[in-house]
Amino acid sequence: MAIKVVEMVHCKKILMKRHFEGVPKLDDFELVEEELSEELKDGEFMVEGHFFSVDPYQRPYSRQLLSPGDVMLGSQVASVIKSKNGEYPVGTRLVGYWGARTHTIVDPKVKGGMIGSMAPLPDLGNLCPSYGLGAVGMPGNTAYFGFLEICQPKEGDVVVVSGAAGAVGSLVGQIAKIKGCYVIGFAGSDEKVDWLIKELGFDQAFNYKTADWDKCLSEAAPNGIDCYFDNVGGKFSTVVRNHMKDHGRISVCGAISLYNDDPAAPSQAPCAEPTFIFKQLKMEGFLVFRWMDRWMEGLSQMMKWIQEGKIKVRETVTEGFENIPKAFINMLQGGNFGKAIVKA
Amino acid sequence: MAIKVVEMVHCKKILMKRHFEGVPKLDDFELVEEELSEELKDGEFMVEGHFFSVDPYQRPYSRQLLSPGDVMLGSQVASVIKSKNGEYPVGTRLVGYWGARTHTIVDPKVKGGMIGSMAPLPDLGNLCPSYGLGAVGMPGNTAYFGFLEICQPKEGDVVVVSGAAGAVGSLVGQIAKIKGCYVIGFAGSDEKVDWLIKELGFDQAFNYKTADWDKCLSEAAPNGIDCYFDNVGGKFSTVVRNHMKDHGRISVCGAISLYNDDPAAPSQAPCAEPTFIFKQLKMEGFLVFRWMDRWMEGLSQMMKWIQEGKIKVRETVTEGFENIPKAFINMLQGGNFGKAIVKA
Repeated sequence: MAIKVVEMVHCKKILMKRHFEGVPKLDDFELVEEELSEELKDGEFMVEGHFFSVDPYQRPYSRQLLSPGDVMLGSQVASVIKSKNGEYPVGTRLVGYWGARTHTIVDPKVKGGMIGSMAPLPDLGNLCPSYGLGAVGMPGNTAYFGFLEICQPKEGDVVVVSGAAGAVGSLVGQIAKIKGCYVIGFAGSDEKVDWLIKELGFDQAFNYKTADWDKCLSEAAPNGIDCYFDNVGGKFSTVVRNHMKDHGRISVCGAISLYNDDPAAPSQAPCAEPTFIFKQLKMEGFLVFRWMDRWMEGLSQMMKWIQEGKIKVRETVTEGFENIPKAFINMLQGGNFGKAIVKA
Repeated sequence: MAIKVVEMVHCKKILMKRHFEGVPKLDDFELVEEELSEELKDGEFMVEGHFFSVDPYQRPYSRQLLSPGDVMLGSQVASVIKSKNGEYPVGTRLVGYWGARTHTIVDPKVKGGMIGSMAPLPDLGNLCPSYGLGAVGMPGNTAYFGFLEICQPKEGDVVVVSGAAGAVGSLVGQIAKIKGCYVIGFAGSDEKVDWLIKELGFDQAFNYKTADWDKCLSEAAPNGIDCYFDNVGGKFSTVVRNHMKDHGRISVCGAISLYNDDPAAPSQAPCAEPTFIFKQLKMEGFLVFRWMDRWMEGLSQMMKWIQEGKIKVRETVTEGFENIPKAFINMLQGGNFGKAIVKA
């Protein structure tokens, strides 16, 4: 009798126990462990995650893409640690949407929409690999394409950014400065406002929790706003639109103020159509993957601006894989400066 | 002592006595008479109005452009009846924004924004001159440019038109059919619905006052809507947007459901940003005068389609200059089929 010895890898996973209602709670998640066989089929490889991303989109997508008991969705920077696939030798670094799991067996032939999709980690030089989840990854391209392609900013334009201290907003404001715009940011604390003005070079910034939005905008943009990059939605965005110039452009990237709404009782705001007509406004929502064919163009430009010191990157790093739920909840409540990352 | 005999013309005018609150009332208007001297200065001419236009835009513009006691704004088809300007000899026919007055002395050198602006009446062949206020005038170009330029319809697209039996909506639906689209209209009575389907060739039409909007759209556009031409705004438009396909295009032409709102307490609807993001929708409001440089292109094409029988035009004509307020109020409440016109 032959005895076959199969090595096992100890894998940790975080499940979404139930769909979130309102603000996600720690109890909505469950940490489970699994022994993963190292015996791979031909074409497969195994990855180990080093950095995990928590992002606003995970809140609405969890409802669209997950069932209770599924592994929480999300992206990670990972390395191939075992391989039966010549294209992905051990040591290859990838960014993949494998969810909140420390180890994953991947068959690159299996395609499943966003979940499971992956791309090589770009060459980040001496930058931390976690940048591949932020400024030189999906949020970087979200800022680059979502602002430049949809807002079409021109030198001298007045640009408003909401969620301005977040992973995407903090990049959009800096890209707008590079393009010669006058940049006004709204963020959720006085410390964030200081950071935007003193470190990132925003022309003006306000704490949306304490400021009179209408008054701030009247004073900061007395002649109106050309471009609005919207990360928050809701009543705040209604007020911004009322301050836009004729032919203003609005890029709708996120709606974090609305993601915790009860779907049966969504937040309401004054109807926007008259403002759209009389100011001839243009508004477009987007998902960054529409620019997949130009993906490396965006990342290369972001990388270049970072290396030239024109874009500053900040991360809020939470230590420990098991703290992904905590980091996710904290990010949804505005606890992060720049990109929220979990280091395994 | 020389005696100078000056002929006088008896002019009727309708004033807006006060700003409208809610639905305009007959008592908000006042008919006054004036003796207008026929003695013109060099460069001036006098026009007499034959047809007067009542349009939804007059409701919001009255608040923006008029003070209590001003002549009610609006356009008319008029003829020059006396002239000291060689470019505008007696008999010249014009479309002008001189407001609700039977006679006007015009100095074409004086420019005052929309009020007072004018253009030659296009050669309408054997069509009624009132078409210059409708299908071969501002509403015609509103339909032509506002639909084709902003919605960018392609053959086979599913198009929804609200306010579909109105001056603009009834043209948009027919243009969409010419372009090979599948056209669904919403209007305010069963008679209008019949007219849209049986006379104008809409594929489907519904009475928005009695239909279950969500159910109608699920059944009429099971794969979603490509283009929405919006004349009404408000909660209805929220429901339509929820039924759009990814990358759907929305042209916001009017918001008649909101124009009678109290500005201090505007109507509310569920916040739209999440729908814009996840469906990647594009929405643009417009004022037709942005296409002033292509004005005759639009009118010529509309004229051609009417002559070819591809576009049918219907007017709801009210007799008597003094009935302008009644026709205006009736139009705002949906009493018109097609273009609402007052014949002096």
